[in-house]
Amino acid sequence: MNKITLLIHCDDQPNIIASVTNFMAENDGNIVYIDQHVDREQNIFFMRLECEFESDTFSVEHFKEAFRNTLVDRFKLKWRIYAADRKPQMALFVSKYDHCLYDILGRYNSGELFLDIPFILSNHKDLKPIADSFNIPFYHIPVTKDTKPEAEKKQLDLLESYDIDFIVLARYMQIVSSRLIDRYPNKIINIHHSFLPAFIGAKPYHSAYKRGVKIIGATSHYITEELDAGPIIEQDVTRVSHTHSIKDLIAKGRDLEKIVLSNAIKLHADRKVMVYNNKTVIFS
Amino acid sequence: MNKITLLIHCDDQPNIIASVTNFMAENDGNIVYIDQHVDREQNIFFMRLECEFESDTFSVEHFKEAFRNTLVDRFKLKWRIYAADRKPQMALFVSKYDHCLYDILGRYNSGELFLDIPFILSNHKDLKPIADSFNIPFYHIPVTKDTKPEAEKKQLDLLESYDIDFIVLARYMQIVSSRLIDRYPNKIINIHHSFLPAFIGAKPYHSAYKRGVKIIGATSHYITEELDAGPIIEQDVTRVSHTHSIKDLIAKGRDLEKIVLSNAIKLHADRKVMVYNNKTVIFS
Amino acid sequence: MNKITLLIHCDDQPNIIASVTNFMAENDGNIVYIDQHVDREQNIFFMRLECEFESDTFSVEHFKEAFRNTLVDRFKLKWRIYAADRKPQMALFVSKYDHCLYDILGRYNSGELFLDIPFILSNHKDLKPIADSFNIPFYHIPVTKDTKPEAEKKQLDLLESYDIDFIVLARYMQIVSSRLIDRYPNKIINIHHSFLPAFIGAKPYHSAYKRGVKIIGATSHYITEELDAGPIIEQDVTRVSHTHSIKDLIAKGRDLEKIVLSNAIKLHADRKVMVYNNKTVIFS
Amino acid sequence: MNKITLLIHCDDQPNIIASVTNFMAENDGNIVYIDQHVDREQNIFFMRLECEFESDTFSVEHFKEAFRNTLVDRFKLKWRIYAADRKPQMALFVSKYDHCLYDILGRYNSGELFLDIPFILSNHKDLKPIADSFNIPFYHIPVTKDTKPEAEKKQLDLLESYDIDFIVLARYMQIVSSRLIDRYPNKIINIHHSFLPAFIGAKPYHSAYKRGVKIIGATSHYITEELDAGPIIEQDVTRVSHTHSIKDLIAKGRDLEKIVLSNAIKLHADRKVMVYNNKTVIFS
Repeated sequence: MNKITLLIHCDDQPNIIASVTNFMAENDGNIVYIDQHVDREQNIFFMRLECEFESDTFSVEHFKEAFRNTLVDRFKLKWRIYAADRKPQMALFVSKYDHCLYDILGRYNSGELFLDIPFILSNHKDLKPIADSFNIPFYHIPVTKDTKPEAEKKQLDLLESYDIDFIVLARYMQIVSSRLIDRYPNKIINIHHSFLPAFIGAKPYHSAYKRGVKIIGATSHYITEELDAGPIIEQDVTRVSHTHSIKDLIAKGRDLEKIVLSNAIKLHADRKVMVYNNKTVIFS
Repeated sequence: MNKITLLIHCDDQPNIIASVTNFMAENDGNIVYIDQHVDREQNIFFMRLECEFESDTFSVEHFKEAFRNTLVDRFKLKWRIYAADRKPQMALFVSKYDHCLYDILGRYNSGELFLDIPFILSNHKDLKPIADSFNIPFYHIPVTKDTKPEAEKKQLDLLESYDIDFIVLARYMQIVSSRLIDRYPNKIINIHHSFLPAFIGAKPYHSAYKRGVKIIGATSHYITEELDAGPIIEQDVTRVSHTHSIKDLIAKGRDLEKIVLSNAIKLHADRKVMVYNNKTVIFS
Repeated sequence: MNKITLLIHCDDQPNIIASVTNFMAENDGNIVYIDQHVDREQNIFFMRLECEFESDTFSVEHFKEAFRNTLVDRFKLKWRIYAADRKPQMALFVSKYDHCLYDILGRYNSGELFLDIPFILSNHKDLKPIADSFNIPFYHIPVTKDTKPEAEKKQLDLLESYDIDFIVLARYMQIVSSRLIDRYPNKIINIHHSFLPAFIGAKPYHSAYKRGVKIIGATSHYITEELDAGPIIEQDVTRVSHTHSIKDLIAKGRDLEKIVLSNAIKLHADRKVMVYNNKTVIFS
Repeated sequence: MNKITLLIHCDDQPNIIASVTNFMAENDGNIVYIDQHVDREQNIFFMRLECEFESDTFSVEHFKEAFRNTLVDRFKLKWRIYAADRKPQMALFVSKYDHCLYDILGRYNSGELFLDIPFILSNHKDLKPIADSFNIPFYHIPVTKDTKPEAEKKQLDLLESYDIDFIVLARYMQIVSSRLIDRYPNKIINIHHSFLPAFIGAKPYHSAYKRGVKIIGATSHYITEELDAGPIIEQDVTRVSHTHSIKDLIAKGRDLEKIVLSNAIKLHADRKVMVYNNKTVIFS
């Protein structure tokens, strides 16, 4: 059984749903999932569709070709088609904090995530023993002001050599430069330890404490040039009170960060996220 | 512009989505919303679809006829089609508690609910002044053990005379008999003041207090023969602690009850709820 | 039975708890509630205490005098003592939105709030019928750029004449000037329709929509000179998604605003809030 | 600096707070935390207090003796006093699920938990590699119907030999018998994968799916003779919908289980939990 996942967006226009579903039927496909969204302010149409093909001779490449010829030009579609059985390859960047790393690797080990983690990369050696205990290759690429361009060159080489699809910054404490961002647009997932857009930048728990908020949060988003301003994938919050010190906020925040980041990873790996206008459409 | 909302369910089977979307296209309809769900355990397919028709000569009745002839038999569909501009008629049953009533009428007044409330009915006179201040007819039908059959007869007459589509029990403190339930299947919405299936029956806040739970809830569901066991539409919860007395639980619970009930009313009035196997599919 | 509520704060120092509890015992008081908090960063001690006195000859004024002489100078206390049976007098300022008003008046009517509402004030006449239906005096004081000083003079006169303890801005769409703030410091409660400090200022739901957040919130805080920057009393949030339009955010936000504001009112009226350094301590 | 934590409960009666705080002052103690609760229905008084003593000659044993002689009889106190620097010794029982184990050990490693874990015990060998990678002794004690009494004898010997204070069942899939419960009353913490009292017993996620609830939960409680009916320490919930399969519920539930269990462990280890009448008082 062959299965594909299709993601499209385009200007909203009549007959787009019928035309796509028709195309699937004409190619002997059976649609097993369809969801759509229209942004009425911007007049943009989004669709996610899963379709099964029983034929022995089905080929994703031929199908893409037919889809392109039949529909792409006609509706001026932006589109992506994935073979549903191909696991995305995810690179994991960490520094010294281990809570998100443990959470991701625990889920990975128990089969919860549909993806491969070919390697873990860090600017410090501290977390190498954890990578070792999970039998995942660990690369130590230190980053200083002077060596940053060279370090990024090494990172890009690694990412290419492992054919990486997306990158997760699991509390990686370095600013990622435009070289990486341009190469992996909307494919670098970060976890920021605040409820964005509140408390952008460094030490958000300290700022939250100072402001006296009654709820703190964590936000997973795609990295863009502007700091902490990329498209938001997932957020969650928890209650705090005057009884919580900064240390308490940090501890409670760790629980949020790991759950929010893991949820964002799952959504991305399952091809449920579409990005436009610096926002996300998240299909169920 | 004519617009219809279509809800269908049937055994899951190939080509169902393409066939329905095709049918819309062939009838010059433009699909503006489609969502679908498949229950893989039971192999049941569900779909909700909104479609616009520009033609001056469009008639919902003709469309229903064509739909029936073309698709219903072929796929053995259970189906409902609504003219999107027809507001459902909702009857409101209350007793003595006023918090849900105020919340519903406040929303109704500010245009938040797509429905009409032709009348309010109660077994007590206490809330008549509220109905008066919102200019809604109020019927007082007392219910005692002896008069119950007669009272229900009066209720049914009222419901028929106002052409009521669904009933909301806004803390109506009477058991509704099978006569009403059979007449309005999955069309009587209740609010139960616990997180079902915990604390079925009377005095759930007392039971929650006694059990020492750390979270209390409220549940809106369709009434069925079995007490508090009907299909759940919406639930919500809030944290409590040992510092809360039963009186505190009741006060905190009121806030849950009114929000949960109003959300359930909106979902039902917007035709976003499908019921099967004593469960609900809630479309977004 | 006489009962007082005591709130104190001072530099943290040894023996403060024992000294205060001792003082109560020596004055034949029985402590029925005590809670304390120490801000370890600022080294400030906070305490809230409820104490009952059986004596027929007990007088709050005499008790205050004794407390002042015995403890206030010794520990350099900031302190407030309330007779527990005296209901605070609350003024309600509104403009055109009615959801918070309905929610507050519904609770007020059902006895949920320990306070009196001597009057409702508005810069528009729209909500007068609601005030009338709850039998509460309604004052219409229009505010234009030119008449603002005069309007505030009228407001202050009204507040004084009714011996008002605190003011609630239930979506009152006017900036309150320093004249009022200075007269009622930490006694003017506002509801802001965002999760502060995100989306300060006008049209926060529009900003939230534009930023693509996955959670929206509401914040109740005391008004200070700086816009939306006063001490936060209460916050709450709810999930949203790409499917929600700005109109949907506004509707969901209304539910948050009314619950958050009513909770803040209850906390303030029950003398459970202490303010320092632009933050709040909220006792349970 | 010596520091003790005191927990007491007794019939509510006048002067109890003043007497205890006085006693601390007379013994040159400085109270740094005090919180109290009165159950008005049962008329029971609870207090938690932390007190520091600067004296070089302070001894917890002498202090306990003095406390017993001065206050315990007079007020008929139930009481516990802990030296605040003594870490509780926690035994960890697991079977085959690893998510709670990873979460606890991750926190333990990063210093988040104030306790020691002298050993991990399991009825299966599957999780031994995880124990090894964290350098914690692992004991494999298989349990079959026939060997259960013998296995429990071994468990008790182990618990005694390590001087264990409390036991955590981190998805330990065996019923614990009364022999263990009697030896560790209110000291065996379990995580149940439902929002108790809903879905007691086996396969709660299957039951939740069947009932069609819109929110699922997890509950941490002390084990008592009656299944899943012990005092609740902590609960949390998350939203689900018709789109979630049983497998999805299990995956979402894992996130709840690990957070709820770890929170309960922290509360217990920090001596913030008091039990009475099969309920808990949780101090902040």
